[in-house]
Amino acid sequence: MGVQKLQVGMAGLGRVGKLHAINFLQKTPRAELVAAFTPDQNEIAWGRVNLEPHGVTLYTDYDEMLKHPGLQAVAIGTATSVHAEEAIKAIEKDLHVLCEKPLSVDVEVCRSVLEAAKKKPHLKVMCGFSRRFDESYRDAFAKTEQGLIGRPSIIRSQTADKFDPSGFYVEYAAWSGGVFVDMSVHDIDLTLWFFGDDSIPKSISAHGITAVQPELKKHKDYDNAVGIVEFQNGKIAYYYCTRMMAHGQEDTTEIIGTEGKLTVNGNPQKNFVNYYHSGGITREVPPNFIGRFGPAFTNEANEFTAACLDNTPLPMKLSNAVKAVEIGSYLQEALRSGKQIHFDEIGRRIEESKL
Amino acid sequence: MGVQKLQVGMAGLGRVGKLHAINFLQKTPRAELVAAFTPDQNEIAWGRVNLEPHGVTLYTDYDEMLKHPGLQAVAIGTATSVHAEEAIKAIEKDLHVLCEKPLSVDVEVCRSVLEAAKKKPHLKVMCGFSRRFDESYRDAFAKTEQGLIGRPSIIRSQTADKFDPSGFYVEYAAWSGGVFVDMSVHDIDLTLWFFGDDSIPKSISAHGITAVQPELKKHKDYDNAVGIVEFQNGKIAYYYCTRMMAHGQEDTTEIIGTEGKLTVNGNPQKNFVNYYHSGGITREVPPNFIGRFGPAFTNEANEFTAACLDNTPLPMKLSNAVKAVEIGSYLQEALRSGKQIHFDEIGRRIEESKL
Amino acid sequence: MGVQKLQVGMAGLGRVGKLHAINFLQKTPRAELVAAFTPDQNEIAWGRVNLEPHGVTLYTDYDEMLKHPGLQAVAIGTATSVHAEEAIKAIEKDLHVLCEKPLSVDVEVCRSVLEAAKKKPHLKVMCGFSRRFDESYRDAFAKTEQGLIGRPSIIRSQTADKFDPSGFYVEYAAWSGGVFVDMSVHDIDLTLWFFGDDSIPKSISAHGITAVQPELKKHKDYDNAVGIVEFQNGKIAYYYCTRMMAHGQEDTTEIIGTEGKLTVNGNPQKNFVNYYHSGGITREVPPNFIGRFGPAFTNEANEFTAACLDNTPLPMKLSNAVKAVEIGSYLQEALRSGKQIHFDEIGRRIEESKL
Amino acid sequence: MGVQKLQVGMAGLGRVGKLHAINFLQKTPRAELVAAFTPDQNEIAWGRVNLEPHGVTLYTDYDEMLKHPGLQAVAIGTATSVHAEEAIKAIEKDLHVLCEKPLSVDVEVCRSVLEAAKKKPHLKVMCGFSRRFDESYRDAFAKTEQGLIGRPSIIRSQTADKFDPSGFYVEYAAWSGGVFVDMSVHDIDLTLWFFGDDSIPKSISAHGITAVQPELKKHKDYDNAVGIVEFQNGKIAYYYCTRMMAHGQEDTTEIIGTEGKLTVNGNPQKNFVNYYHSGGITREVPPNFIGRFGPAFTNEANEFTAACLDNTPLPMKLSNAVKAVEIGSYLQEALRSGKQIHFDEIGRRIEESKL
Repeated sequence: MGVQKLQVGMAGLGRVGKLHAINFLQKTPRAELVAAFTPDQNEIAWGRVNLEPHGVTLYTDYDEMLKHPGLQAVAIGTATSVHAEEAIKAIEKDLHVLCEKPLSVDVEVCRSVLEAAKKKPHLKVMCGFSRRFDESYRDAFAKTEQGLIGRPSIIRSQTADKFDPSGFYVEYAAWSGGVFVDMSVHDIDLTLWFFGDDSIPKSISAHGITAVQPELKKHKDYDNAVGIVEFQNGKIAYYYCTRMMAHGQEDTTEIIGTEGKLTVNGNPQKNFVNYYHSGGITREVPPNFIGRFGPAFTNEANEFTAACLDNTPLPMKLSNAVKAVEIGSYLQEALRSGKQIHFDEIGRRIEESKL
Repeated sequence: MGVQKLQVGMAGLGRVGKLHAINFLQKTPRAELVAAFTPDQNEIAWGRVNLEPHGVTLYTDYDEMLKHPGLQAVAIGTATSVHAEEAIKAIEKDLHVLCEKPLSVDVEVCRSVLEAAKKKPHLKVMCGFSRRFDESYRDAFAKTEQGLIGRPSIIRSQTADKFDPSGFYVEYAAWSGGVFVDMSVHDIDLTLWFFGDDSIPKSISAHGITAVQPELKKHKDYDNAVGIVEFQNGKIAYYYCTRMMAHGQEDTTEIIGTEGKLTVNGNPQKNFVNYYHSGGITREVPPNFIGRFGPAFTNEANEFTAACLDNTPLPMKLSNAVKAVEIGSYLQEALRSGKQIHFDEIGRRIEESKL
Repeated sequence: MGVQKLQVGMAGLGRVGKLHAINFLQKTPRAELVAAFTPDQNEIAWGRVNLEPHGVTLYTDYDEMLKHPGLQAVAIGTATSVHAEEAIKAIEKDLHVLCEKPLSVDVEVCRSVLEAAKKKPHLKVMCGFSRRFDESYRDAFAKTEQGLIGRPSIIRSQTADKFDPSGFYVEYAAWSGGVFVDMSVHDIDLTLWFFGDDSIPKSISAHGITAVQPELKKHKDYDNAVGIVEFQNGKIAYYYCTRMMAHGQEDTTEIIGTEGKLTVNGNPQKNFVNYYHSGGITREVPPNFIGRFGPAFTNEANEFTAACLDNTPLPMKLSNAVKAVEIGSYLQEALRSGKQIHFDEIGRRIEESKL
Repeated sequence: MGVQKLQVGMAGLGRVGKLHAINFLQKTPRAELVAAFTPDQNEIAWGRVNLEPHGVTLYTDYDEMLKHPGLQAVAIGTATSVHAEEAIKAIEKDLHVLCEKPLSVDVEVCRSVLEAAKKKPHLKVMCGFSRRFDESYRDAFAKTEQGLIGRPSIIRSQTADKFDPSGFYVEYAAWSGGVFVDMSVHDIDLTLWFFGDDSIPKSISAHGITAVQPELKKHKDYDNAVGIVEFQNGKIAYYYCTRMMAHGQEDTTEIIGTEGKLTVNGNPQKNFVNYYHSGGITREVPPNFIGRFGPAFTNEANEFTAACLDNTPLPMKLSNAVKAVEIGSYLQEALRSGKQIHFDEIGRRIEESKL
């Protein structure tokens, strides 16, 4: 087989890292997973069974992996706190980068990745927002572009996780950046897609509660939050994020236009089965984001690979990934301060005293 | 109030009789329920509480009720076995008649009602098939008439009751005429509506089982049956009837045309509520035909009343009610005999030896 | 017929007034519509055809109608601006009152009705919020009471009207009190029902746009608005109101609890018909609130009547109707000012300078 | 990469052949597509672009392909008329076989493949019924096995294709075996799965029409047909097959048990998007079986590969594939003859004269 395949190294083999690794190993015909890094011994053990027999070299040192012979690209699925550093190192080694969202919970750190990438315009650097690769969101976007709903004016979007009773998310809140940065960043990214990259916030409000995990308060975080972003172009997005769903993952989006409306996942369902019983009619729901967006991650791996090999544009801009974190951070601030935040027409924050 | 109101007497105060009585008493502004007959003492007791205080005279003798001063119309909701006799008596007394389906399980007896009605063309005599008065079926019919689905060619229709563990339906089978006459007669009536009154059967097949009530076999009846009626005009209707549903009433119809399809009640639901829980998403289903067709019975009472008072045409022909029983009886025969039944172009049965 | 019927007079015969009049005339067996008032000649003409023949006396002077012999109750469906005055006059005449929402767009005026009613505790005075009488909302409430969703914590509720291109709503905005008072007052009332009457706001935010009717700005109103109310008891309600829907009325509510979720009207539909065609599968949606809530208005008339005749408690408190307008007014203020509003633990507003 | 991969040759590169080829080439990590055969020059041209660059050798002679060095398995997706011959040749060459359904439209020919396979028990010979590999059907089967619906008693299943105006299916009918053999064979296979392999027919009826393609009559075929199969074990399956759908592929199955019901694809949909517009709410439907069952074909390729490499049992028996054609042929005969067909308790046909 004389066809060139992109030589990929995977950083991180946690839940989402495993997903990426398997995608590059088995479901991305034009790529070859050649290396994987993780500092975690349990994850190394998983790699011994699932990756090594297929010719993947395992590393416990990220810098070592970057030296893997012939390596062309790195996929980063480690903890958020090291995303930026790893991305910058890879860029400096002249490697393409596919980084899990967010680049960082700190806007300045996000910008440093953007700066590093700008210096190497021949590299493909993408922060993967999986919903951009989902068939349904793409269909909704195509219909919007065709003008089916007139001018998109209101977006309602939510990221709603099934409740995890393990307490994991309480500790996670210490460094997650807060629910709007960690969860709603997807919904904000969708907003920039449907409303336009050039959308500038005008004002931001947010409110939150701790309904099932009061311990979150120690990290100034919430398990349910609602936020509103009003844009300068006369559009509004409003978001709900929660980790309390009993039934499963329910990430839903409505795009409301002047002449129609599109919903994505208004009726969550795991598959095409309905069960009729004495209590009524029941359908199941995917338990997590992989159940809902699994195929989107596969698309992402394939499209990133194609862009690297063919030197074609990436399907999404890195700068949007920074902007999404920025808006998420403002929402988080509004959530904590109990005050609305205002911006001028070019997006500069207006001090409260000037209002 | 100088407005004339139709003076109505109700025969029978069982489940469907009570429904009609309350409709004429409270939900049919142009009618006045003045009398009610039942031979059953429990039903009389119900009438004492619910009808007498509103000025309704109770009778335990049908002939006596027919003599009620000023009576103009009778609604018949007694046992099927006396429908025809009571209808004919009322017609002979020059009273309008709204009779529950079927007129009789015996085609000849049905025809005798038709004959009696033909002699008094000024009277309104209707056999009430509730689905004809249902908003959804009417919408589907209007869309069909508008040509939205091209030429209707295939109908799938089912009458599916929630399982009744009381054993009632075993005894009932002794005189119900069998499941196709008792249940599918609704689906057959719909077929005549959507395919045209002039539809003539070409061949009929049917199969049945007793899945939950084997005692039905002693009455040569079944708790689940499937039948097919092919018509001379190149159309086919197929029916499923069951008394075994765990979840509730599920009467569903598909009308498949050369250019589209309409479904009625493809997604049964009791109301607009969905309950999301750890097992998925559940909606409830109406437990019986009243939950599904209650408002249709009210429409029926009002439209029958209007036709009587204004001397306008009834919304459905009595002859169709006879034809529906006739086709139901052929299905029942095919079910029992295990043989297909054939008809010539004008609907005369072809003897097997002539095939 | 010796049964006592409540003697009802109707004030106003506009769209909702006609609906109430027909309900009391034809669908409320224990009530009798005896009088109707309207200053509008077109509405009088409608009354001549539809009410007078049934014995209803028409009045063009409200005070004259109140003197109608034997009158026991008044239903008020006139313009909002006169609701309160008419309600108080009726109370003073010792008449029961069913008043359309809102009592007034002015909180103080609302309170004056409450005061008048308190002086006559034997009278039934109700401000009709139709959703409280809807079978689906009641089912959702019953399920919530049964504990099916744990502790209700988040409510999302929207009032979404089909776009009316006539320009009517632009003029209407001059005196409607704004979209949150006029439309979301239903959603706020539902919130008080599901979260408890004693729920006290903690903070309020709101944002709005004029997407299709920029002329609304002259009345400082919006055609799309989103608002959040955070309550002292650790619960949040968020609302969307719009007059821009292409497809019809879409009033949807989600009640999210710690152990489950209930949706009401998550899948809007006019009836049980689905149309399958070359573009997909389509179902229709009710064009307006009457298509969605018609039966609820009938329930309302019947339950109000029963409470008056039997001296039983009304199904909803008048004080809630005042509270709903109060919260709506705060939302409207937040919408216009661009500032979050805060309250202390007993609901007193906290001045901005004190934050 | 030291992992052994199954060396696969593809026979036929038509619509379904291309699908299999791409699956084995790109989506079956443990298999390697090494060869492909087609006598059709257009298909060879497609192979030159899509397969050859990936190292796949193209053949225009089936026997030559069987000699491809190292070949271990053949996937057959040619015209039905040569399926059996090609399967037998491959078996004789000691190659595993995955054959598209049906093995043949002639029951005797099907049996000859079964005989050939029996002689080589070390080979994996499977006739691929894609629905057995569909996640939703598998979920329904698992729920049935768990006893959720009690004893499965009635199956309704349909294969419904979008109308193809090209006239292709008229010519195809000359050798397709008829609609029940060509289309319903999937539904019959599902029946054997859910009712049990040992289900023996008791009686069979069928009726058909030509609603949109009257030319089908010259091949004694139909564009819409309904059939019923009653089994000796007191169960009934009924089938609808059509090539007339306006909206797309709609393959639906209901499994009705004594205590509940399962539906698969009761609500067809292409993705998670709903479009709200002035005519209502619309969702799209997959245009063909690939849109509905694409991932099932991928599962099929992977599971066949695993069985070959690991010498584990195939997920379905070859004998069922024969039995499904047999029942389909009886349905087709009943359709043409207008007579019910009967069987004794061990499945031997009962002559009409003996009934």
